[in-house]
Amino acid sequence: MENAERVSGKLEWRVNVPDGTSNVLVSESDQLVNKAWLWLKGLLCGLVLKIWRFLYNAWNLGVAEPKKVIHGVKVGLSLLLVSFLYYMRPLYEGVGGNAMWAVMTVVVVFESTVGATLCKCINRATGTFLAGSLALGVQWIANKSGETFEPIIIGISVFLLASATTFSRFIPSVKTRFDYGAVIFILTFSLVTVSGYRVDRLFELAYQRLSTVAIGTSLCILITMVFCPIWAGSGLHDLIVCNLEKLADSLDGECFKDDKTKLGNEEGPSKRMQGYKCVLNSKATEEVMANFARWEPGHGRFNFRHPWKQYLKIGASMHNCAYCIEALNSCINSEIQSPDYLKKHLSDVCMLLSTNSSEVLKELVIIMKTLTKSSKIELLIGEMNFAVQKLQDSLNSVPNSFIGPTVSTLQAPNEAKREIIPKTTIPSLMDVFPMASLVYLLIQIAARIEGIADAVDQLAGLAEFKLAMDENSKQKKSTNKSTSDNQDHETMKTSPKV
Amino acid sequence: MENAERVSGKLEWRVNVPDGTSNVLVSESDQLVNKAWLWLKGLLCGLVLKIWRFLYNAWNLGVAEPKKVIHGVKVGLSLLLVSFLYYMRPLYEGVGGNAMWAVMTVVVVFESTVGATLCKCINRATGTFLAGSLALGVQWIANKSGETFEPIIIGISVFLLASATTFSRFIPSVKTRFDYGAVIFILTFSLVTVSGYRVDRLFELAYQRLSTVAIGTSLCILITMVFCPIWAGSGLHDLIVCNLEKLADSLDGECFKDDKTKLGNEEGPSKRMQGYKCVLNSKATEEVMANFARWEPGHGRFNFRHPWKQYLKIGASMHNCAYCIEALNSCINSEIQSPDYLKKHLSDVCMLLSTNSSEVLKELVIIMKTLTKSSKIELLIGEMNFAVQKLQDSLNSVPNSFIGPTVSTLQAPNEAKREIIPKTTIPSLMDVFPMASLVYLLIQIAARIEGIADAVDQLAGLAEFKLAMDENSKQKKSTNKSTSDNQDHETMKTSPKV
Repeated sequence: MENAERVSGKLEWRVNVPDGTSNVLVSESDQLVNKAWLWLKGLLCGLVLKIWRFLYNAWNLGVAEPKKVIHGVKVGLSLLLVSFLYYMRPLYEGVGGNAMWAVMTVVVVFESTVGATLCKCINRATGTFLAGSLALGVQWIANKSGETFEPIIIGISVFLLASATTFSRFIPSVKTRFDYGAVIFILTFSLVTVSGYRVDRLFELAYQRLSTVAIGTSLCILITMVFCPIWAGSGLHDLIVCNLEKLADSLDGECFKDDKTKLGNEEGPSKRMQGYKCVLNSKATEEVMANFARWEPGHGRFNFRHPWKQYLKIGASMHNCAYCIEALNSCINSEIQSPDYLKKHLSDVCMLLSTNSSEVLKELVIIMKTLTKSSKIELLIGEMNFAVQKLQDSLNSVPNSFIGPTVSTLQAPNEAKREIIPKTTIPSLMDVFPMASLVYLLIQIAARIEGIADAVDQLAGLAEFKLAMDENSKQKKSTNKSTSDNQDHETMKTSPKV
Repeated sequence: MENAERVSGKLEWRVNVPDGTSNVLVSESDQLVNKAWLWLKGLLCGLVLKIWRFLYNAWNLGVAEPKKVIHGVKVGLSLLLVSFLYYMRPLYEGVGGNAMWAVMTVVVVFESTVGATLCKCINRATGTFLAGSLALGVQWIANKSGETFEPIIIGISVFLLASATTFSRFIPSVKTRFDYGAVIFILTFSLVTVSGYRVDRLFELAYQRLSTVAIGTSLCILITMVFCPIWAGSGLHDLIVCNLEKLADSLDGECFKDDKTKLGNEEGPSKRMQGYKCVLNSKATEEVMANFARWEPGHGRFNFRHPWKQYLKIGASMHNCAYCIEALNSCINSEIQSPDYLKKHLSDVCMLLSTNSSEVLKELVIIMKTLTKSSKIELLIGEMNFAVQKLQDSLNSVPNSFIGPTVSTLQAPNEAKREIIPKTTIPSLMDVFPMASLVYLLIQIAARIEGIADAVDQLAGLAEFKLAMDENSKQKKSTNKSTSDNQDHETMKTSPKV
């Protein structure tokens, strides 16, 4: 074996060293044991490594989002409190052996956001109450109709109600709001009717269940709202703001990269540019959060009837914008490159539009963050539209600057001569079209950013944002008064719309 | 009042007739009663109408997707069967009063797809078993440590385990697979430890819970797999096929509409074109279904280890394609219209590319539907790339055909003369760029469709699709052999790639 190792060369010998040094001159059975030991060690190491990696990931997640750790602690605390019910004799006598329903309620109902917890609590309480009273009615009828019919009536009612309620969970209006309530309805109805057949103290059962559920839900609501509450509404607001920032960064990075392509690729901006991809995938989260936010009372800067639905509209217009940025991104990374003279001619004005678009988005971020109407936003949109106009103008001026010299050989419009002209010198659409579509997509993006601005404006109207009276706007007002000729310029800026 | 009605004219009089005829010559108190009655009637009518509409929607949903009705019936059936446990004395004696755990298991675990049900069943069984044994261990230690320390040890263990497990539910790897198991773990652990303090027959409780959960889960698995099983895997497969069809229709409709814009808008094609919007929003559903499909045994044409993850890749490449179609759609509906000569020049070749792209997608649909490799797909992709090449060629030839006549006045390339030329006659980029970006996006879409084809090809490799030996391919083979000159043409077709 040693010979074989020597023959097989330096590389293999090195690999075999850890085995080789310990296994020299030992019998085969010992080798087998050693191999098994190594295999076991490898397995254990792999397992330890896997667990270590899991814990490492968990630690990172906890550090990145301490809210999630807080939620865990809150659930632990609620369970601890609810188990005291069991230890304290007077309460235990009151609710009987059914204290476990309180434990179960806490485990099942406690969600990470206040809205979700409230939604589940209200669903659970309503579902339990409705199903409990309905089950008592069915039980009463079944009792009256004699011993032979009793199980039949109960069986049929359980079958029909369970089928119908389960089907109703697929209906969108039920699914978004009362899904959990429907499950609890079926559960309570089956339990009460079926148990009622055996347990003769039916009213007591129903009463105990209701009271324990009440204890569990009120404890959940108390703890979720008092200790570091995590609001679905605030979460939705932050998500939308964060997505707006990402879109703004993408466009900022876009222009940045457009500039840098000549110098070479850089890692930094391309990472910032990828932000729009998060926006593409956030629709489901937004819908869930908006759905839960509706259940929440007023908190922080948001009233009870804050127009959460409008956030979905803002989200939708942001997705629209992100689709376009995606196409733009693929356009920039395309293999087909436009000629340099076109790039030179258009890159400045493209960058201007890109930067202006990004600035509009950044102003929208400020509006959303401060919940105040901005006096600057119309000006910025005007500037963006002015940049669009400028871009269109420079598109118009392109042929003059580069068709001229190349077509100089073309003197007569004869059919025969046209064939002779060398194709390469004429600026064909083939050369132009990646740049043209880049420009078109930039203009599209500007139009869609106006859509976002409109949606934010609607939100400002619905939620009655106040006008920000910061120093900048005051300064602007005074300058506006002093120099009236500026106004003409501004109105000109706002007029061209795509 | 009557006078007033007469004065107010014919229209108003008509409106007031139903009130007017009954209210003539009655006292004010009667009017109040009448008003209240009308209000109540309105309220009741509104309520009835609302319920009616709800039932109507439910009926439509049931007719459109009978699977959902079947699922409802299956849940009803399972609950009926599990409640028989309660009625049958021997079984009842066996599992004791804890038969309600079986009922609860059925209600909570029964999901609409086999995969989801299996996932929940396995999670529930594992979670119950692990938490039960751990709780017994903790209970034993707590018992040994004396009466004063018992509640403290139990309290701390409940708090720590509940907090840690709740936090672990946020870790992605746990969240996607073991979320429900974690909930059940906390629930069982708290129930067993807390109840153990009171109920002295702890082992019995644990045994009963395990056996009832076993009864419930096995019943669920049996019914969900025997009666009209609804497989998450098949659902995912159908969803992907349906989305592919929608993309194909969108591109088909695209070219169709492109043709019809001159004749006038039609409702039909625009509706078909909107199909891609479903593709944009199907990501979350795909992920959920792929996650559940992994738990399912082999069914129908799918093995146990069918590469469901690859479906997510196909889905991702379809979303990519849909983003581009979205941009294309906005490009077609744009206000800025390209000049007619450009449209005429390019519309035919654009339509060709659009149709070819659609045909590639349709062939992919056939591959996915029949689960066989297609001999035609490479040919079709080649044709699509040939159309791309053709489109690029006709872009190259554009300037020749339209620059000629308009630039005929331009005889010398002097700076002064260039200014005189009327701008409108020169084909500026401004005129060209919507068409150019349409072309660019079409070419992008073709490239992305190749991405979809690659993903489907990978799936075919992973799932070992067999080669389809249908009559068409046989015919093609025979013609290929007889006419060898065709091959040159085909290889030429497949060569140009974007």
